[in-house]
Formats: sequence, structure tokens, C-alpha cells
Amino acid sequence: MDLDRTHAQSLDAADPLAAFRGRFAGAGEDGLLYLDGNSLGRMPRETPAAIARTVEEEWARGLVGSWASWIGAATRVGDLLAEGVLGARPGEVLVGDSTSVDLYKLLVAAADARPGRDVVVCCADDFPTDRYIVAGVAAARGMTVREVPADVDEGLDPAVLSAALDERVAVVVLSAVAYRSGALADLAAVTRTARDAGALVLWDLSHAAGAVPLDLAAAGADLAVGCTYKYLNGGPGAPAFLYVRRELQQQLRQPIWGWFGQRDQFAMGPVYDPAPGIERFGVGTPPVLAMTAVEVGAALVAEAGVQRLAAKGRALGELTVALADAWLVPHGVALASPRDPARRGSHVTLAHPQAWQLTQALVDRGVVPDFRTPDRVRLGLAPIYTRFVDVWDAMARFREVLATGAHERYPTERTRVT
Amino acid sequence: MDLDRTHAQSLDAADPLAAFRGRFAGAGEDGLLYLDGNSLGRMPRETPAAIARTVEEEWARGLVGSWASWIGAATRVGDLLAEGVLGARPGEVLVGDSTSVDLYKLLVAAADARPGRDVVVCCADDFPTDRYIVAGVAAARGMTVREVPADVDEGLDPAVLSAALDERVAVVVLSAVAYRSGALADLAAVTRTARDAGALVLWDLSHAAGAVPLDLAAAGADLAVGCTYKYLNGGPGAPAFLYVRRELQQQLRQPIWGWFGQRDQFAMGPVYDPAPGIERFGVGTPPVLAMTAVEVGAALVAEAGVQRLAAKGRALGELTVALADAWLVPHGVALASPRDPARRGSHVTLAHPQAWQLTQALVDRGVVPDFRTPDRVRLGLAPIYTRFVDVWDAMARFREVLATGAHERYPTERTRVT
Repeated sequence: MDLDRTHAQSLDAADPLAAFRGRFAGAGEDGLLYLDGNSLGRMPRETPAAIARTVEEEWARGLVGSWASWIGAATRVGDLLAEGVLGARPGEVLVGDSTSVDLYKLLVAAADARPGRDVVVCCADDFPTDRYIVAGVAAARGMTVREVPADVDEGLDPAVLSAALDERVAVVVLSAVAYRSGALADLAAVTRTARDAGALVLWDLSHAAGAVPLDLAAAGADLAVGCTYKYLNGGPGAPAFLYVRRELQQQLRQPIWGWFGQRDQFAMGPVYDPAPGIERFGVGTPPVLAMTAVEVGAALVAEAGVQRLAAKGRALGELTVALADAWLVPHGVALASPRDPARRGSHVTLAHPQAWQLTQALVDRGVVPDFRTPDRVRLGLAPIYTRFVDVWDAMARFREVLATGAHERYPTERTRVT
Repeated sequence: MDLDRTHAQSLDAADPLAAFRGRFAGAGEDGLLYLDGNSLGRMPRETPAAIARTVEEEWARGLVGSWASWIGAATRVGDLLAEGVLGARPGEVLVGDSTSVDLYKLLVAAADARPGRDVVVCCADDFPTDRYIVAGVAAARGMTVREVPADVDEGLDPAVLSAALDERVAVVVLSAVAYRSGALADLAAVTRTARDAGALVLWDLSHAAGAVPLDLAAAGADLAVGCTYKYLNGGPGAPAFLYVRRELQQQLRQPIWGWFGQRDQFAMGPVYDPAPGIERFGVGTPPVLAMTAVEVGAALVAEAGVQRLAAKGRALGELTVALADAWLVPHGVALASPRDPARRGSHVTLAHPQAWQLTQALVDRGVVPDFRTPDRVRLGLAPIYTRFVDVWDAMARFREVLATGAHERYPTERTRVT
């Protein structure tokens, strides 16, 4: 690969998504090479006006009457995600609660749907909250957690997963894109394998939604959850989404029987009777202001198109890997993501014993990655607003830090939150 | 009581909280007699700027670095509520999730803390989501729900509750202020009675917080949840709060083991190890934008002072009841709230067979109440922005509707959401 900066510039010149960069606040203005993207995507420029409309028109003026439109927000934004981002059908996605709460609801529902099976399979390297939720559900139900080992860099080997499946397994919880390595799972293959073993797969799409094409319908996926504050740019702590395949909805019942899951909710009847469709997976009143921001972010991603976003994400990743090989590996950095772009989401992770010091040095030089324990620097390449020259410049600064040893002056103890 | 409008005006002139009305958008400008207050309180004027600050400065400019302050929002807003609204101690209140999810978490935690007991007591007339959540938890655990009958107008008789308590009861779930009648429970007495029987009480403060003084510490209350979108003016679907008495926190474990409940969360350790304090009742990433609005509303209520708010709420209620007696009862309306102001929260409910038609007629005449099944018109008297003349004018329009039969022209079938 041509590693000149002019080559990166020519890739940007040919980028069909280039115009979307201007739709985000700060991009191109704050001078930041913002490669976080995973804990918090940038803010769409339309978001403040949309929120002001919700707050100052709908809440302040429309008052309680605005519930006539708010009541449909969880499914309206859900349908937008279904069609524009997830490759699901209308009525299969609901927005509300946090990813962790959604994961809990669907995990319990799935376990209930497999009576007589007492094992939950999850991945030893999955995101902490996924593993903790699985542990809590298993503990409460007397189930066993079977943690399958994953190569921390290459992701889960399908053969290892297959070997872990037997007639005891009720549910498999897996991330579509691994949070550290970025390893991309084969949703269709894993779903088939699990189904053959009689188990349901519950996908966590947090690091995948908006970054890779997720054709949930074609993959035959049964259950999924995911956050909206990373590649979907829904804002800090934005409400999550959950997906339940239409044909499964009537069979499943989630454990938190709230009034937003009730059929004919405002009849306020004496007995819980879950709504027939995806609404049955709702619980309490959803946070309307936060949902407004999700709607803006999801619409932008849908407009850009996940196929185009994924193609650009792969290209950004290839440039990152090529520059890492050329510039950083000689300084002791190792690639900690799959090398094959087809097996990777839209982030690239690099390992170095001084990863935390490097992260601090990079932040002070205008490059914002994520640190991930114990020794990883994660570069989130949000394709909707990241340029090829941004990657080039960030990697050049990374090389500069390593070459000069600038990171050595930073504390080894973690003091920052991100 | 003097029922002249001039008397209402003189009460307003003497109102120490009069200035707070101007702190809310629309109050005094939109001509609405907004007596909903229960599904959605009015918007504080400071809210748009606070949200814009969070969105345009903290999110758009501060980006992921803003998590350094956001990470503390759930306990910071919790402490504000604890001290300013709930009469609790710092470190006893956490904001996040919906009321229904919070109720679920604490109910499971409480039931776990009373092993060997297999009954949950709740009130037959409690808000639907409370009853549904109780039913779901009981069903999952093989527990029995013992619904104590409450007088739908007068609320729960403490003697009836006492009779329902025995050595089988693990938890009692009760609303401090009943959602239909407005009946106010005696928190300290109920807590003592339940404790003598070895049970924990889990209070729903949704219709109480910001409307009546809640000295949770003095009452010895163990557990509570509540919404922030009614009298706390936190916005549509605003995140709820939960309260756990400090001495109980270490003994209790909630069932949804998310990473925001984890000790040393960003170490991302292999095993769930709940935080020592109130944070252990957190689950996923909280919705930051929505929390900003809660903070503004809670601060306003704290500034006004719950004692003053409650005193004004009682006086508004007394005027409402007096006008109902004089003007509406002759037209077939019946008081459906406790007559004694000391036994009432800050709303007054009226019963009439055509309540839904009356509600529609009132809304079209600029009076916004809540309809509550099957035959109730609920008047929420949010003391922070409701004037005595608002009550007088609303009741005069109510009388006019009844006298002219204007409501007869409205559909009997429910078509609106509110």
C-alpha cells in the first residue's frame, strides 16, 4: 500500500461519504483526530435543534398532549434502526432502557424459552457488562455459565464455539464485533450452529451497529441488543435497542412486567397481559429527550447507508494496519485485531506494554483513542466522519510519540475515566 | 371557606412561592389551566440552556472526555434529590433507569434478603406498573401476591395492611401517594408495622416526590423508587430515582449485574463485584441528556422547599374540594380523594360517570386534568406553578361544562392517549 499522505488525500477525494463529515459538530474544526467513536460518537449538527424542538415545542408547549406522538417513539426509532441499520423488519426493534437492561430482559426471556436446559454460553473476552449480566442471570436461576475462550486478538473460533454447544445449552450470548479486537463474528453461521444445537443466540451489536452491515433477517438472527452512542451517534448514555425476530415474539416473555409492555396500556387493567408485538419487551416510560437524539443519529447513518459505511470502515482499517506495520511495529507495537479486513469491525486495536501511557500522550497531542485493559490502544474508525488523512495524521503522531519516548513521562497509574 | 375569586387572588398575593411560577415556560402565557402535573410537569425555563450546555459543550466539544463529570451524575443528582426533596442522606439515592426497572431491581433485592418468606403484599388499587412488576417477580420466584384491598377514594387502611402481614411476607410494595385518590400513607407507621412483621417496605414515591414532605430518614424507610417527570419537572420519561437506606446497602444485591454497578468499573475485571455504596444499584450507562433535565427540575423543587410546596399543595387542595362541594357535587360529581388534607397528596380526584367526556370538554376549554379509569377526573395541583385563581378558574369552567351539558357532545370511547 502507498503510505504517502497524498495517497490518503486521494482516498478522501474519492470518498462518496465525504460530505457527511460536515454534518457533525467539531469535525474539521476542533483539530481533534477523534478516534474514540466507541464510547461516544460525535454530535450530529441537527441534534441540538431536534432536542430544542422536543423540549421547547413538544414539552413546554404541547405538554402532556405530546404523548400522542411520544408514545410511538420507541417503535418509530426502532423501525428506523431496523430498516436503515440492522437489516431487520418493521416491528422487530424497540428503543429504550440501557443495553445492559435490554440484555437482561432478552436473556431471561430466552432462558425461559428453553426449559430443561441449564447452561448459558458466553465468550470469556466479551465486554464486562455482558459477562456480568450473564453471571447474574445464571446465579439467580441456578444455571451454569460456560465461558468459551476466544483469542483476544483474533476473536472467537467457530469450531471452539461449536464444541461448547450441547443439549444443555439454552442461550449463547456473543458480541457481533468484539469490543477489544474488533473481531467480526459470522452471524448467520453462528446462528445456524446454535439452532442446530437447540440454543438461541443473543447478539450484542454495540460495536457493530452503524459500523458493519448487519442483515439480521438474512442471518436468521433471533435476538439482539445494542447501544446507540457509539457508531450511531445518539449521545452520551443514549437509550439502547433490542431486536426480537417477529416469529419469536409471541413465544417470549421478558421478566420486567412494566406498563409499557402491556397490551392496551391506558386501560390500566388489573392483570399484566403483554402486547402482541415488539412492545411487549418494553418496561417503563422511555426517556423522550434522549430518544430524540437517537432518532437523529440513526437517521444520519441510514442516510449514509451501512454498506457504504462498512466499505469505508474497512478501507480506513486497512490503512491503519498498513501504517501500524510500517511505523509502529518497529517500536514494539503489535496488531491486536484480525488482519483480514473481512473479519474486522470498524476499529483496529494495537497492543503495547505502555498502552495507558501512550493513550495519555496521544490525547495530549490531539489524537483521541480508547485505552482498553490491560495493554490495548483502540482506534475507532467511525466511517461517517473520519477521513483517511485523519488516520494518517494520527498514526504519524503515534509514531512520533514512540520515536521520542514522549509517553514515558506520563503516569502508569490510571487516573482518567475514559 | 370564602369562594369568591377575590379570595383566591388574595391567597396568591400572600403566596411565598409565587415567584416560582415565572421560572416555568408557558405558565401565565399559554392561558392553560394545567392541572395535569402528574403525567408531565411543566418545563423549567432553565432546562433548554442546561441541555444545550450538555449537548453543545460537553458532548460536541468535550466529547468522550466529558465522561469525567458525567460518570458522577447518577449520584450527584441522587444526592440533590436526597437532601432537597426526599429527606434522605447523601449516598442513599441513585438516578437512572425507569421507575418500573428500579422497582423490579429493588423488589428482587428485597425478596432475596428475606429468604424463606414467599409472599409479596401490594395494594389492589396501586398503579398498574407496580402491580404488574410485583406479579412478574412473584411468578418468576414462585411467590404469592397478597393484594390488600384499598378504598379507592380513601386509600389503604393501616389496620387492613396490618392484618395482611405475617411471617410469610417478605416485601410490601406501596405508593406513598395513591395515583387515583391521592391518599397519603403514613410512611413511618407503615414502616414500623412491616418491620415488626419482619418485612421490608418498598415505597413508590412517584406521586409524592416534590408534592409532599418525605422525610425518609425520620420515617426509617428502607427502600423507595419514584419518577421525576411529575412534580419534579424532569421532562417526558425522565429517568427515575431509587433509594436504599445506607445501612441496608451492603446486604442487598440487585439482579441486573451491569457494569455501572461494578466496583472499579473501568478495570473491567473478570468477575462481578458490586460497588460498596448506592452505585451497586446501577446497571447500564445512564442517559446523560435526560439526567441534565432532572437535575434542573430537582434543583428548582429543592430551592422552593418541600415544606412550603406541601403547605401550598394542601391549601390548593382545600380550595379545590370546597369549590367541588359547592359547584360540582350538585351536578353529580363526587369527591374521590380523602377529605382530610393531612391525608392527601397534592392532587384531588373527582368521580363522575361521564369522566372521560368531561375530560375532553375541559381540555377543549383550556383546563388540562388527567382522566383515570374508569370514571375519574384527576386534578394535579403542582404547587410550584399553580395559582389559587387557576384552581378557581378551572373549577368555574368545570361547573360551566356540567351546567350546560357541553361534555355530552364528546365521544364516550377513549381516543386520546393522555
